[in-house]
Amino acid sequence: MKQYIEKNKDRFFEELFSLMRIPSISAKKDHKPHMLKCAKKLVELLKKAGADQADVYPTSGNPVVFGQKIINPKAKTVMVYGHYDVQPAEPLEKWKSDPFEPEIHDGAIWGRGANDDKGQLFMHLKAFEYLVKTKQLKHNVKFIFEGEEEIGSPSLPAWVKKNKKMLASDVILVSDTTMISEKVPSINCGMRGLAYLEVTVTGPNKDLHSGHYGGAVANPINVLCDMIASLIDKNGKVKVKGFYDDVVNLSKADRAQLARAPFNLNEYKKFLDINEVKGEKGYTTLERTGIRPCLDVCGIWGGYTGEGAKTVLPSTAHAKISMRLVPNQDSATITKLFAQHFKAIAPKYVKVKVEPKEGGNGFLIPITSDAFKAASKAIAEVFGTEPVPSRGGGSIAVLADMQKILGTDPLLMGFGLERDTIHSPNESYLLKQFFGGMESIALFYKYY
Amino acid sequence: MKQYIEKNKDRFFEELFSLMRIPSISAKKDHKPHMLKCAKKLVELLKKAGADQADVYPTSGNPVVFGQKIINPKAKTVMVYGHYDVQPAEPLEKWKSDPFEPEIHDGAIWGRGANDDKGQLFMHLKAFEYLVKTKQLKHNVKFIFEGEEEIGSPSLPAWVKKNKKMLASDVILVSDTTMISEKVPSINCGMRGLAYLEVTVTGPNKDLHSGHYGGAVANPINVLCDMIASLIDKNGKVKVKGFYDDVVNLSKADRAQLARAPFNLNEYKKFLDINEVKGEKGYTTLERTGIRPCLDVCGIWGGYTGEGAKTVLPSTAHAKISMRLVPNQDSATITKLFAQHFKAIAPKYVKVKVEPKEGGNGFLIPITSDAFKAASKAIAEVFGTEPVPSRGGGSIAVLADMQKILGTDPLLMGFGLERDTIHSPNESYLLKQFFGGMESIALFYKYY
Repeated sequence: MKQYIEKNKDRFFEELFSLMRIPSISAKKDHKPHMLKCAKKLVELLKKAGADQADVYPTSGNPVVFGQKIINPKAKTVMVYGHYDVQPAEPLEKWKSDPFEPEIHDGAIWGRGANDDKGQLFMHLKAFEYLVKTKQLKHNVKFIFEGEEEIGSPSLPAWVKKNKKMLASDVILVSDTTMISEKVPSINCGMRGLAYLEVTVTGPNKDLHSGHYGGAVANPINVLCDMIASLIDKNGKVKVKGFYDDVVNLSKADRAQLARAPFNLNEYKKFLDINEVKGEKGYTTLERTGIRPCLDVCGIWGGYTGEGAKTVLPSTAHAKISMRLVPNQDSATITKLFAQHFKAIAPKYVKVKVEPKEGGNGFLIPITSDAFKAASKAIAEVFGTEPVPSRGGGSIAVLADMQKILGTDPLLMGFGLERDTIHSPNESYLLKQFFGGMESIALFYKYY
Repeated sequence: MKQYIEKNKDRFFEELFSLMRIPSISAKKDHKPHMLKCAKKLVELLKKAGADQADVYPTSGNPVVFGQKIINPKAKTVMVYGHYDVQPAEPLEKWKSDPFEPEIHDGAIWGRGANDDKGQLFMHLKAFEYLVKTKQLKHNVKFIFEGEEEIGSPSLPAWVKKNKKMLASDVILVSDTTMISEKVPSINCGMRGLAYLEVTVTGPNKDLHSGHYGGAVANPINVLCDMIASLIDKNGKVKVKGFYDDVVNLSKADRAQLARAPFNLNEYKKFLDINEVKGEKGYTTLERTGIRPCLDVCGIWGGYTGEGAKTVLPSTAHAKISMRLVPNQDSATITKLFAQHFKAIAPKYVKVKVEPKEGGNGFLIPITSDAFKAASKAIAEVFGTEPVPSRGGGSIAVLADMQKILGTDPLLMGFGLERDTIHSPNESYLLKQFFGGMESIALFYKYY
């Protein structure tokens, strides 16, 4: 495939950029038209790459793109999952280039979606195109690209249920995760779930003069801070009642297996420019993100946040709170437990509103399957080292659902790196990983 | 003066509105041109009202307006202090009318500055005009209007020092405070000071994917919440080391005197729509705002605050923290103590920046002076009840400085009411108070 890449590189970039230029931000309602535009562009690219059929399918939310090429009904069927929606680009002022005008420099593609997930799903299109054009394709291939992954895929499960037959396959191939490092390829064998809520604390019914009322009326920002501070104890344990009830504690042997993954704490701290890591007592950094759940405030706001010194005792304060869950923790249950807990700890001098925003379960992938072995062999051949099985800290909520509905295991062949800063300003994707990923995917089909 | 008001009412409104339409927001740098425009408008209005001299004086910040009419060098001199700058209008979406397009309805003037302080300083212009036009003026009158009160008057003290002679006077008359209620007129005999800082907590050097890092890296929002929560203990005491060192504890007799002010806790809670008040243990609501210092978060922000559910572990979190101080607490000292304390409690996994933004000392006013007595008599005549001496919770930082530099006591004849929601959306000023204030001021000159 190397030669094919070399010959078609410029066209590849132009095609990928045509996707990246569409600001398909699923979290923002006013980007609806971009979602359809992006879905149509994918249909065009699928057909161009060699799909026999490719269409935009409406759902209750953003449309799904489905396309396929059936070689032989008896052959194994690979279904590629990807998502064409992206995270909001904010904070915009931290971008060194326009998030929606992709660039190539410093050996990488730069822009929102360069990796997550436009860049990564694009590798599949091109590996498929290569196999079709060079007549090497021996599997049936299906593609499902959704437009709501970044908001927790609220519409996809229902659509998958309705189209179960059409989606029948032997493996769900996904590139939407990272490798441990450039030098240490890895395959995720598990991901965390998510429960995401927005909370609002209301004190007085209007913003007040902080001089006239300060000291006598509960300030909702102070109260929100008190409440958030009480959610995690000094050992890093989440204090939401029942939070750990369904967490499966890993055996010593399993933990030892995970500990084989290379990890350099000093490099990690240096990369983040922090003096010290912080997390649940009794667990390593990789365990804290791989096998343990956690709680983070993803956003907080209230009162005067502009320039200068406005003195105000505000009426409301808000926070967005995310909990990453481990397999066996149920997102809906945790969401309910959190809402109950947060209301229960609210002091009587404020009112509290809790709105669930997004959720999905974590899942595990068997590492003994044919597909896992084929992926391992392919990656080893391209990257020169056998990939380590790892546990991802992120969430692809819908994969647990698809695993359950279709009875098909996902396989996470992700080629991103931490340096890509997905979800953050200046998202990028190393060309080395982009092209190495394409090659690995093409080889996966060879070995599967 | 009643008749004069009746005859000139429409002109009064038009003149006041010409001030209110200028968005002279001192907290925002891009409003600089509006400050000068507003100062020039005041010079025009001063001359129109009868001042012999009125000019715009540059300072190191926003200009000061000074004007005067000297009747007789041997007569008593009243200096009127006011400020033409206003608070930012945010949150704009909560205004029922344009904050800078004043309206009159429901018996009140509506718009930013309706009360604070354009509406209140305007009463002085018109009482003065009335006395001049009707040849009743027997005092020398000086006017000083500044444009930085809402940001803590950083430039005025130096200007006052430089112009000490020009500003010589027997009393500094100020209308920039409230009365206890419509039915209970009061005169403030003390105000709180202020120390206002902005804090920034930095965790990792970039925004991170909350799945990849959540649970392993300290989240600056969670850390900021922990730190803020630790600033006030469960008895409502501020935990900043040394915070109460200079607070003078009032005697039982003094507290009993203050307790005479009428106060209805149920009405207070109903007005604010809160179930319970909250404050320092052992003190009443009026004491909590009148004679005790406090700490409030006036603003907080960090991470994703837009629509939907962006999962991010942000790099930074910010808060604006205000402390209201009581007389004898020094704002500069408290600012320093807070900065030290906040840095000292910062955990090792974050970096903390503390920026002082604004400050000023509280002060007390003797209630036995001729000026106080004249004001009391004037207000009693207009409002039908003798005014109660009260303690204001707000701050007019510069008055303590002027008291010190000029050796002249201020006198706080404020006619605002809590219902005016100054500093908040839908600021207003009851016409009854506006005109009653003008009459009271005119009578003050009669009795002083």
